[in-house]
Amino acid sequence: MQELEDRIRHDGIVKAGNVLKVDAFLNHQCDVELFDHMGAEWARLFEGVEINKILTIEASGIGMACIAAQHFGGVPVVFAKKAQSINLDGEQYATTIYSFTKQKEYPVIVGKRFLSEGDKVLIIDDFLANGCALEGLIKICEAAGAEVAGIGIAVEKGFQGGGDKLRERGFRVESLARIADMDCETGEITFA
Amino acid sequence: MQELEDRIRHDGIVKAGNVLKVDAFLNHQCDVELFDHMGAEWARLFEGVEINKILTIEASGIGMACIAAQHFGGVPVVFAKKAQSINLDGEQYATTIYSFTKQKEYPVIVGKRFLSEGDKVLIIDDFLANGCALEGLIKICEAAGAEVAGIGIAVEKGFQGGGDKLRERGFRVESLARIADMDCETGEITFA
Repeated sequence: MQELEDRIRHDGIVKAGNVLKVDAFLNHQCDVELFDHMGAEWARLFEGVEINKILTIEASGIGMACIAAQHFGGVPVVFAKKAQSINLDGEQYATTIYSFTKQKEYPVIVGKRFLSEGDKVLIIDDFLANGCALEGLIKICEAAGAEVAGIGIAVEKGFQGGGDKLRERGFRVESLARIADMDCETGEITFA
Repeated sequence: MQELEDRIRHDGIVKAGNVLKVDAFLNHQCDVELFDHMGAEWARLFEGVEINKILTIEASGIGMACIAAQHFGGVPVVFAKKAQSINLDGEQYATTIYSFTKQKEYPVIVGKRFLSEGDKVLIIDDFLANGCALEGLIKICEAAGAEVAGIGIAVEKGFQGGGDKLRERGFRVESLARIADMDCETGEITFA
């Protein structure tokens, strides 16, 4: 998606350790017009795919998922919550996600009332790098008996391999910007 | 706002300890059509008030703030982040917020690049009870030299007094549903 690539080139900041900061428009300050265009683009890419729910994870995915939902007939958005601990009261699907940024595992939960057998789920998130967060969301869908109808990503760091692993497993992953390479010395970003 | 009150009556669950669960439509599963109507109502209530930015706090405020922003000319949404610790590198406004639910203080931060002197800020959040979260967001606006042009709340628990304290200090607080009383034995909710 040209508009997103242009914005990343213009306002994204490449940092050491394969970090791309997009907090000026995606995940601290949110450009809701850009989110609207991203939602329209995901709707175009997933046209004809049955989707009755969008699943994302707090916090950065929520804004883009809610605005994208308007382009999918206003389907409900469910966001997985990062929990302090897993409460095994039987009311929640739970899994753990490993964060490379924070170098630790954290539990995430989704209320069982909000994800059911037969749901056709579009998973949306801001970043796809190693794919750990998505693996967690996919596990939660599997536990619920829900089908992952597609995965919509804003920025895929293609060189970290998570997206290709998911595609090899048969998931349809649509990333609006795919970064092939980036250089923290020069700040240069190459898109796939 | 009748639609929100009806929805709270229908799908809200009153729990012991003055807890109202609205996770079926507001803060775990999100009804984006309802969010759109809430955004339109805040825009009506704050008509004529100059607003160039919306400030909220992760995670529950983000979805409704992003959709509301579409009714305020697509102004940027900034969400305060809950931090592990306050990093005093000078790049962030920081404060601590006391959570009655979790009975502890947590630090919240906003990047200095995203809030400036002269900004006219609408603060949006899902709940107003004691007002601790809002006090933190107001402090961050003050630190930035930004003006709090208004405060838009989905659900105010009027009996907990936070809203009236803010109104006494001169803030314009517009809550779309104001709960006067609720009873966890009968599940009854009385609106103001």
